[in-house]
Amino acid sequence: MSAGAREEGREFLPKFDAEGLATCIALDAERGDVLMVAHMNAEALEKTLATGIVHYWSRSRNALWRKGDTSGQTQTLVEMRVDCDQDAFLAFVRVGGDGGACHTGRRSCFYRRVMRENGETRLVEIESPKASVAPALG
Amino acid sequence: MSAGAREEGREFLPKFDAEGLATCIALDAERGDVLMVAHMNAEALEKTLATGIVHYWSRSRNALWRKGDTSGQTQTLVEMRVDCDQDAFLAFVRVGGDGGACHTGRRSCFYRRVMRENGETRLVEIESPKASVAPALG
Repeated sequence: MSAGAREEGREFLPKFDAEGLATCIALDAERGDVLMVAHMNAEALEKTLATGIVHYWSRSRNALWRKGDTSGQTQTLVEMRVDCDQDAFLAFVRVGGDGGACHTGRRSCFYRRVMRENGETRLVEIESPKASVAPALG
Repeated sequence: MSAGAREEGREFLPKFDAEGLATCIALDAERGDVLMVAHMNAEALEKTLATGIVHYWSRSRNALWRKGDTSGQTQTLVEMRVDCDQDAFLAFVRVGGDGGACHTGRRSCFYRRVMRENGETRLVEIESPKASVAPALG
């Protein structure tokens, strides 16, 4: 496989790493912002394209994962893009359920800013978890 | 390390995979769209935060890579975010040089849409390479 064909061709030639995985970034199709980053193996990618519902490969559970099956936060594919070497994907999605993507209860997994000041690095929260999923008091 | 501290704390606890890498997504700080996806090891991450210039780890060259050193497409960090389990980063950047990020001459590496029709998958180009870097005729 020449780099030229993969980079400039119209042929879909997804590339997976040594573990059989590619990176997929889910973005909100309306707002355009990043919701989460996860992995797809060949089966997850094929099922995503065939069904229009985003599937990932869960590295922690070592299993195919149709996002939303337990949370209701189904991701319906609106548009998919692939990068130059075809080992990373952007999935523009419409989110079901409460509209969130993060298991912590936030809309996006990227809810903290990394700040470096005077050589110290700390995180600053920019999105709080929803009240409904916050730990109960008492 | 408990998941709670990593997910809900204010402490910066970046997590690297078995190869010592984390995923970094570079976005245009003005337009907000995704330019490229690459990897950072601990050194690249530290240099990025310390200098404000984005560094990656090149898996193909097996070397630290200050983006733009050869292309002029330096990425100046405007804001960095981290995800829930601290193994993926968003780098909002201002791009130097010609403003592009992709080695093919496009602004973004995600210049092709993946289309599935009647069971066939093909790519549709949505950003052409610049004339100046297109192959010469004849």
